[in-house]
Amino acid sequence: MKGEVAVIGAGHTAFGEYPEKTYPQLFAEAFWEAIESVDKGIDPKAIKAVFIGTLGSGGSQLGNLSCAITGDLNIVPIPAVRVENACASSGFAFMLGIMSVASGLYDVVLVGGVEKMRDVAGLRGRYWLGVSGDTLWERLAGTTFPGMYALIATRHMEQYGTKPEHLAMVAVKNHYYGADNPKAQFRRRIDVETALKSPMVAGPLRLYDCCPTSDGATAVIVCRSNIARRYTDSPVYVLGLGAATDYIAVYEREDITTLRATVEASRSAYRMAGIEPVDVDLAEVHDCFTIAEILAYEDLGFCRKGEGGKLIEEGQTYIGGKIPVNVSGGLKAKGHPIGATGTAQVYEIFKQLRNEAKERSRQVPGAEIGLTHNVGGSGGTCVVHIFGSRR
Amino acid sequence: MKGEVAVIGAGHTAFGEYPEKTYPQLFAEAFWEAIESVDKGIDPKAIKAVFIGTLGSGGSQLGNLSCAITGDLNIVPIPAVRVENACASSGFAFMLGIMSVASGLYDVVLVGGVEKMRDVAGLRGRYWLGVSGDTLWERLAGTTFPGMYALIATRHMEQYGTKPEHLAMVAVKNHYYGADNPKAQFRRRIDVETALKSPMVAGPLRLYDCCPTSDGATAVIVCRSNIARRYTDSPVYVLGLGAATDYIAVYEREDITTLRATVEASRSAYRMAGIEPVDVDLAEVHDCFTIAEILAYEDLGFCRKGEGGKLIEEGQTYIGGKIPVNVSGGLKAKGHPIGATGTAQVYEIFKQLRNEAKERSRQVPGAEIGLTHNVGGSGGTCVVHIFGSRR
Repeated sequence: MKGEVAVIGAGHTAFGEYPEKTYPQLFAEAFWEAIESVDKGIDPKAIKAVFIGTLGSGGSQLGNLSCAITGDLNIVPIPAVRVENACASSGFAFMLGIMSVASGLYDVVLVGGVEKMRDVAGLRGRYWLGVSGDTLWERLAGTTFPGMYALIATRHMEQYGTKPEHLAMVAVKNHYYGADNPKAQFRRRIDVETALKSPMVAGPLRLYDCCPTSDGATAVIVCRSNIARRYTDSPVYVLGLGAATDYIAVYEREDITTLRATVEASRSAYRMAGIEPVDVDLAEVHDCFTIAEILAYEDLGFCRKGEGGKLIEEGQTYIGGKIPVNVSGGLKAKGHPIGATGTAQVYEIFKQLRNEAKERSRQVPGAEIGLTHNVGGSGGTCVVHIFGSRR
Repeated sequence: MKGEVAVIGAGHTAFGEYPEKTYPQLFAEAFWEAIESVDKGIDPKAIKAVFIGTLGSGGSQLGNLSCAITGDLNIVPIPAVRVENACASSGFAFMLGIMSVASGLYDVVLVGGVEKMRDVAGLRGRYWLGVSGDTLWERLAGTTFPGMYALIATRHMEQYGTKPEHLAMVAVKNHYYGADNPKAQFRRRIDVETALKSPMVAGPLRLYDCCPTSDGATAVIVCRSNIARRYTDSPVYVLGLGAATDYIAVYEREDITTLRATVEASRSAYRMAGIEPVDVDLAEVHDCFTIAEILAYEDLGFCRKGEGGKLIEEGQTYIGGKIPVNVSGGLKAKGHPIGATGTAQVYEIFKQLRNEAKERSRQVPGAEIGLTHNVGGSGGTCVVHIFGSRR
């Protein structure tokens, strides 16, 4: 499957608050930006299927999102599927889109995601995000997602000497890059002191250790690689993919400082791409909390287990370091509209590998291989994709 | 893709009420039955990915169902995806499973669905099924799903002379077969008079024109056809598939007596399989309401538009007729646990094409080609699969 499928266009609403837009309306913005981003032009009729990731179907009181979207975009009767894997929904939608093209069934497909986290009418919110972790022994016992990652952070600190300053440094980096990303929800830089003085959410995690709630939508267009040049002279190829699950309840895992789903998914993706972690030029990782980015460094193989704190302390995940991570601002500063996050990561890698992240600080010079890492729940699911500017 | 993928095992809980079981527990029953149904045996470790259809994730207060299920089945870390396309959720999950195998990514995968319609704690129910139709101009104006199909039935009656008796005959047929299906929720026969005297739900649709609310789970195991005989001497091959969407709001359609998504999806499936409707030996169609079965007769090409009433009146959709339909009892009598219905249809065709529907009335003699037809919402999405006992 390596290199058989290419990304030819990508769209991304600015992340933030959109109280006036429904899910389909918000998605339509990303869709049209994706269509217009295709250099040589594309007729929407060329699209043969749609894969949409979203956690909260029923948002804006609208369900059956797959056809709500094809109808709204007026691309009926093409088939569409809604995928929900918690915060990894559109990462998995992307994987399905790739498979559909690789299977020979469709030659051009649309993949995307959309979420309105700021629209949690009535009791819906309660059953939404919280249920993506274990219910019986975690949520009903009072543990929230920040609480769960706080436990992981506490253990990581005890086991490996990771400090609150390391977590703060991740936030500082992601705000640093987010400030220059016109799509980001938070566009101001912070310093370590600000992060360390921010209100405690779930010790040791403070406000700046947590990603925000966001509205937004993203969309990418993919096709068979052997027809990609009809649409653009600079397609971005999918070189590898891998996905995995883990026990949804963190207490059932052997080691809570490792997300096994990340380890397994990335292994599969590296194997398909035929590369090692050291070959990756930049990565968009799932930093729902700062500790999650540190886990990702380790679980994706960018450093050894326990050395994630050191990696950020040395500045190795800034541009110019060993492996620039989340130069989009990440979930932390760019925002995390659940269903939109997976393809937002793909959007960023697409732009970077085409040398189109034009804003001041953000382009990784000469980037040729990029990786995306999308996690659902507290590591219950994970999907990793590897992209290259060449097949 | 024709014939590249085969079904090698299938499991199906009896449909009914399971207040004591969670979603994963209910699914596990279907899973183990599927594993045990594989003639030559299969190690669950052979399964490389899971595709689960469900409408109501968050049921039993459990979300992130993909990993909740792999964890519960102890088949972590294999990847899993949850698919939601309203009532067509596991029909679409099946399509994705087929694509994943045809793409070469996985050689053996598990597809299934699960739902607990009888467990609608709190307000969840309100946002569940109703939102699978149009919200702005239908649901919020007071139209329910029975109401929507009642409008369609009224129009069909006016346009084609279809009578309440025709609707009742569909219910009578499906109860006739359901009575002999050990998996069915309703196992008693009714007559036309009983159906016609039952309480009005949404005129002209009466109680016996509506499928019940049900709990249940189904699972099938599929693999590359060229390894299928490792697992069974009688694999059932996927000869064709097709899917489509339509405008979610019925008022936006040109003709409300046609489900265009069915027409388009079945055309694609017939084309891939290289067959005509007349070649189909039996079909499992989406009879959420009796009128929906009559539309399916027409939209799938089993008779001309407007002649669906005549087809059932002549008994042509009984065994022995032109095209036996819903000899499982259909959604009407077998039950309709939303997410489980698509793969329940696959289960039935699998058994029929292997000559294993042993119960008194139900085996279609010599059936070699079967079709499944799964609809989401009031025709917003549709997926059709065609199966053969030979490639």
